[in-house]
Amino acid sequence: WTTAGGVTSRHTMDKSITLPPDEIFRNLENAKRFAIDIGGSLTKLAYYSTVQHKVAKVRSFDHATKEATSDELYEISVQEEVTARLHFIKFENAYIETCLDFVRDHLVNTDTKVIKATGGGAHKFKELIERKLGLRVDKEDEMTCLIKGCNFVLRNIPHEAFVYAKHADSEFRFQTTQPDIFPYLLVNIGSGVSIVKVESEDKFERIGGSSIGGGTFWGLGALLTKTKRFDELLQLASKGQHTSVDMLVKDIYGGSYGSLGLTGDLIASSFGKSATADKEFRCYMAKSLLHMISNDIGQLACLYAKLHNLSRVYFGGFFIRGHPVTMHTITYSINFFTKGEVQALFLRHEGYLGAIGAFLKGAEEDNPNQYSWGENYAGSSGLMSVSPDMNPMQRARSGTFDMLEMDRLERKLVNLPLLQDASSYIPDTVDLAEDALAREYWLYCFEEALDGVVKRALASQPDMPEAAERAEKFRQKYRHKLQTLRHQPL
Amino acid sequence: WTTAGGVTSRHTMDKSITLPPDEIFRNLENAKRFAIDIGGSLTKLAYYSTVQHKVAKVRSFDHATKEATSDELYEISVQEEVTARLHFIKFENAYIETCLDFVRDHLVNTDTKVIKATGGGAHKFKELIERKLGLRVDKEDEMTCLIKGCNFVLRNIPHEAFVYAKHADSEFRFQTTQPDIFPYLLVNIGSGVSIVKVESEDKFERIGGSSIGGGTFWGLGALLTKTKRFDELLQLASKGQHTSVDMLVKDIYGGSYGSLGLTGDLIASSFGKSATADKEFRCYMAKSLLHMISNDIGQLACLYAKLHNLSRVYFGGFFIRGHPVTMHTITYSINFFTKGEVQALFLRHEGYLGAIGAFLKGAEEDNPNQYSWGENYAGSSGLMSVSPDMNPMQRARSGTFDMLEMDRLERKLVNLPLLQDASSYIPDTVDLAEDALAREYWLYCFEEALDGVVKRALASQPDMPEAAERAEKFRQKYRHKLQTLRHQPL
Repeated sequence: WTTAGGVTSRHTMDKSITLPPDEIFRNLENAKRFAIDIGGSLTKLAYYSTVQHKVAKVRSFDHATKEATSDELYEISVQEEVTARLHFIKFENAYIETCLDFVRDHLVNTDTKVIKATGGGAHKFKELIERKLGLRVDKEDEMTCLIKGCNFVLRNIPHEAFVYAKHADSEFRFQTTQPDIFPYLLVNIGSGVSIVKVESEDKFERIGGSSIGGGTFWGLGALLTKTKRFDELLQLASKGQHTSVDMLVKDIYGGSYGSLGLTGDLIASSFGKSATADKEFRCYMAKSLLHMISNDIGQLACLYAKLHNLSRVYFGGFFIRGHPVTMHTITYSINFFTKGEVQALFLRHEGYLGAIGAFLKGAEEDNPNQYSWGENYAGSSGLMSVSPDMNPMQRARSGTFDMLEMDRLERKLVNLPLLQDASSYIPDTVDLAEDALAREYWLYCFEEALDGVVKRALASQPDMPEAAERAEKFRQKYRHKLQTLRHQPL
Repeated sequence: WTTAGGVTSRHTMDKSITLPPDEIFRNLENAKRFAIDIGGSLTKLAYYSTVQHKVAKVRSFDHATKEATSDELYEISVQEEVTARLHFIKFENAYIETCLDFVRDHLVNTDTKVIKATGGGAHKFKELIERKLGLRVDKEDEMTCLIKGCNFVLRNIPHEAFVYAKHADSEFRFQTTQPDIFPYLLVNIGSGVSIVKVESEDKFERIGGSSIGGGTFWGLGALLTKTKRFDELLQLASKGQHTSVDMLVKDIYGGSYGSLGLTGDLIASSFGKSATADKEFRCYMAKSLLHMISNDIGQLACLYAKLHNLSRVYFGGFFIRGHPVTMHTITYSINFFTKGEVQALFLRHEGYLGAIGAFLKGAEEDNPNQYSWGENYAGSSGLMSVSPDMNPMQRARSGTFDMLEMDRLERKLVNLPLLQDASSYIPDTVDLAEDALAREYWLYCFEEALDGVVKRALASQPDMPEAAERAEKFRQKYRHKLQTLRHQPL
């Protein structure tokens, strides 16, 4: 924070960042490898670090052998293990200096000399990064990183992509990861929009783009509502009544224009009422703006998809953020224009594609085929958790930081070799995010079992004086987690 | 005007209309037939009326016959003639009551019982029109009227369509009227945008649309700049520096993104700088907005053209108004996305297509094949004359009214029957709008001849005491017209 006039400006400046070191930039002191993706508005930083954690090892005794020294059936020993973990974090470009300073001050045991950088800002902030971090900036092409990252999450992160259906029983329909991901259209909505046709790992082309993107929502939104924070604009947009601002088909026709298939509630002209309205409905403008931009992107996406015969469109970039109005508008727009021929798919890690790609570019030198990556759910912010009205608690904890952590497994995951046909195999699992009844059942089971678990834990450590206190702490934490999952299963 | 608190609000309300009866609604007293096109923001009224005017008839004498009663070679007699004339006028929907009252008060000798109405407002304002004018509203389908009007101007009005090329010797390249006008794409930009594929006189389909149109420019522009008048917003837009508001490619990349073919000056994110800028550049926002909307419409137009294999795109509706920034942006956008495969064509009477179509619907009952229509240039506002900084004089005269008058010729115009192949015949004429040298030459000739003409006129009426005064008036008016043509040849 800067100080102005002797008073710290911490509370006066409209900042989107505070840096509680235990919450964000976790495990920074051991960071081994860096990648950075700097867009028009946001910086996404990725670093790979090691974490020590305790693992309970269970040893069972075979009473028939001489090993058995007691009556116990098994022995639990706690060991320290070191896991490789990939951390992602994002912040507004305005705070890049603060963040780089923070990184420099907290970096202890690193031996890396290089930071992979992508995005437009890789050029603009090159010197600053090199000066602040003392690392050499190694630039990577933006589109290459974007597509590399997108392919990676589609292949490796379970439930990465999903369809949004506002009025369905389950709003989110997650896609299972598949080896065949090509061809697809990637619509990356950052400050502006890039539309990329992806045919294979190496073959992709930016076939279109638009200047009406996240920067437009943020910029116009700030001008119209005096709210300078992107997430607050999104919050405004979920409350507003855009019909006082937009000119609808029924405002012109008195009803629907039946012969053209235009319903009365369709927006005929975005902001079409604003010039002649007596009042200014400032609070409603965010919604109108969000509709305008989402509809426009939806239409462009489906036109490009149709022109290039692509049936799957993924949306990347940090514009959408799991916001229901945005996803519904884009989905509606695509269904309206393609009559279901083209499918709109959203990505849980939409904003990190470029950073993931840049990181992988660097990690390729390590022979990436020797390990696998899995999402660390406990360290990642869940879907929709950044929308403040959805989950004020999580919001307060993470600020505008969306966190993503991935753990490295030191072997490559392969299909079970006994499977006759891996591609057609559907595992007989229950998706608790989709199946509300099953979720309710299992959460109930875990809650019911909690007291018994606590009792056994206490009984297992009769000589530890602080066991009761620890057991109570565990009980509360566990119950709170179950409650969170009940309200926010994603 | 309404009166509020005893003070006439004529000067306080932000009105776009004053009604000098000698300038607008001309020949209203003899109006025979009405058509009205009410859009989301503007009403376009068409009426057909008769005008009396003096025609000089020349009779030459054959001295060999007994008719010769003097030495003179010819005799000039002035006769009154009656011509049918079609008038078009537009005003904001907010003034529809005022205008309807005006029409009712000035309508004298009409025997029509019906007014043809189209556009969304035909429904909304039906009752008001019937009550005010005492005419029965006969509704016509909007798309049908739009296409009928477009086909009509393309076939009948010389130099109706033109290509805009900002950096060419001649900014405007007019198209000659052709009998083969199909197929084409019509992008009608009113408050919203309709995109119509036209394959023949009767076969057309609305294949797309967008809510980002003229209403968005007006509405968002009014909110951002506090300027509530459309034409003033356009004027602001021709002055502004959008680079303080928009985020350009070079703002992100420090230069161009060469491998993608994106130049540094390309807009990456419309209004992308507004959220983080220290200052608000209100005066520059109109230009940024105009760019945003024009680019978007241009991209949508070219995608629809490519999807449907159409190479000609006409732009209709009252959004463009011959504004150079708009036409350049749309043209640039279409060239950028289609690499020249698709041609953007603008229309001089862009805003009157629906009204013309509705009028023709009514006139069809009169057997339209018995006459032809020609533009009355003296009664129509010229291209770009509505842009206030282009021609403040004309602007002051016509307010925001764009005027179009068409004269009816009481016979059908056909090709010269002696032509071997009419379709390949190119008349050996000089287009003074395009050929600057020829224009200069002819204007010079007319100016040089003026004194001689005045002298002969004076000499021809030696007994008229007011002849000298009238001749001087003529000289001034004529010279002024020549000067106008020199500066504003279109």
